[in-house]
Amino acid sequence: MLPFSRVAIIGLGLIGSSLAHAIRAYLPTARVVGHDADPQVREIARRIDLADDITDTAGAAVIDADLVILCVPPGAMGAAASAIKDDLAEGVILSEVASCQASVIAAIREVLPDVTLVPAHPVAGTENSGPEAGFATLFHNRWCILTPPEGTDPTAVARVEALWQRIGANVDTMDATHHDLVLAVTSHLPHIIAYTIVGTASDLENVTRSEVIKYSAGGFRDFTRIAASDPTMWRDVFLANKEAVLEMLQRFTEDLTQLQRAIRWGDGDKLFDHFTKTRAIRRSIIEQGQDDAAPDFGRQHP
Amino acid sequence: MLPFSRVAIIGLGLIGSSLAHAIRAYLPTARVVGHDADPQVREIARRIDLADDITDTAGAAVIDADLVILCVPPGAMGAAASAIKDDLAEGVILSEVASCQASVIAAIREVLPDVTLVPAHPVAGTENSGPEAGFATLFHNRWCILTPPEGTDPTAVARVEALWQRIGANVDTMDATHHDLVLAVTSHLPHIIAYTIVGTASDLENVTRSEVIKYSAGGFRDFTRIAASDPTMWRDVFLANKEAVLEMLQRFTEDLTQLQRAIRWGDGDKLFDHFTKTRAIRRSIIEQGQDDAAPDFGRQHP
Repeated sequence: MLPFSRVAIIGLGLIGSSLAHAIRAYLPTARVVGHDADPQVREIARRIDLADDITDTAGAAVIDADLVILCVPPGAMGAAASAIKDDLAEGVILSEVASCQASVIAAIREVLPDVTLVPAHPVAGTENSGPEAGFATLFHNRWCILTPPEGTDPTAVARVEALWQRIGANVDTMDATHHDLVLAVTSHLPHIIAYTIVGTASDLENVTRSEVIKYSAGGFRDFTRIAASDPTMWRDVFLANKEAVLEMLQRFTEDLTQLQRAIRWGDGDKLFDHFTKTRAIRRSIIEQGQDDAAPDFGRQHP
Repeated sequence: MLPFSRVAIIGLGLIGSSLAHAIRAYLPTARVVGHDADPQVREIARRIDLADDITDTAGAAVIDADLVILCVPPGAMGAAASAIKDDLAEGVILSEVASCQASVIAAIREVLPDVTLVPAHPVAGTENSGPEAGFATLFHNRWCILTPPEGTDPTAVARVEALWQRIGANVDTMDATHHDLVLAVTSHLPHIIAYTIVGTASDLENVTRSEVIKYSAGGFRDFTRIAASDPTMWRDVFLANKEAVLEMLQRFTEDLTQLQRAIRWGDGDKLFDHFTKTRAIRRSIIEQGQDDAAPDFGRQHP
């Protein structure tokens, strides 16, 4: 059975466009309608035939949808909810894909206090943005975390879960606050660290930027990938998940200070022990199918 | 013309075994002899036919070689030089591949004050270690940095350069101190940061290790790759390049504090500006062929 028959996607960036591709690929009888606030994005979406219809207003996209998924940056969720407010159909389920849930849920609830809300955050992505970055298999074997507010209709939750499973994701459910803490460590902390180190490396007096680029294969280039992610979305994430991010940064800084001290004092045993421990984590990630087992992420060495 | 006809490789880990594969593939008439201090590594090397001969002692490997390349961790370079000291042929060129040069050159010079030394550090690698991790194309289109001490015979430098070019590398030359500073930022800083964050994430009370692994595709998994690198080698690198690493860590910490402050005070513009700037660096790295242009490092989404 089809969990939804008419899906509206608001926001056609990497996640929105991947959802459109995935739903059309794996639930081909569902109707997919898309909208983006940016007219240029809508034009591209029409040209690449991203959905059955691309509407000029958010309201027109949702008017007969049984599922509406907001795929805009966290800071734009409240405005997106306002834009669809008057056109939502009776019995519609609203979802959104934000990487920080507590503040986004609050922003939507302020505009739409009574809507059935089933947030679903897919822990998946690439460094690319925009309507042409999406692809149907982005969510394959990735986890999608549902954070339905207490008291949400379990049938609605089950339908959203069924949708994500149909497009290849594994589904977990947790409360929004725990979600935000988990994502602070598995996603937000890595991003702020990567953004920092790429900035540090490009701002030196005695090593040129051209040297940094040429010799980046020594490790640095790995960080540049996530530091190339969408600036608007990441600004919003850090502002919206401030407390959890600051808490993780505090812990990170303490741990870094400890290793820095070991380097300064020549404590090789402490360094060796730490470096041995961290190896095990990667093995588990590969065993659980959350990264490519090929060396160097499977990069080509042609 | 063959730059060398008899190459001895001491240390058969990722770099040593890749060199053996590469020289046999691209200079098939050169004779390659290998040695590793670990008998188990020698046994594997013989089984996989890594070289024309695998010798039980370092001395036997170098006895008639016109090029000897030390591929052991930085802290073991002095001992490796001692082990070959009495068996080096007249006119031999000695090379080594360390990621930190000033202290390694000093350690070798102490044992072999008069040898012709042409260090050559290939900025290339994967997270895997050991004699089975190597492959012939590891150095393709990667940079190899020569750091010959002042006064080194230019013919010797040219021959080492020719060897690296034949196995697919681009070659640069700089002095050892500058090399160590450049590598501190493009390689050593990223590694210590990655080792730190992987430790931080696996040591939390309120987020389980299993959650960190499951949801690692949000960015964290990128860091686990380089944090899976060889612990012995990296302990040695940080101890041997202490000053430059501490200097880069200091700058990194300042930059991180500034972004942390922007998060705390909700300064979205500062975050946005920083995140926009870092995007450009990745584009340059890809343009210069130093990373895969495919999204997500070319990881498979099957």
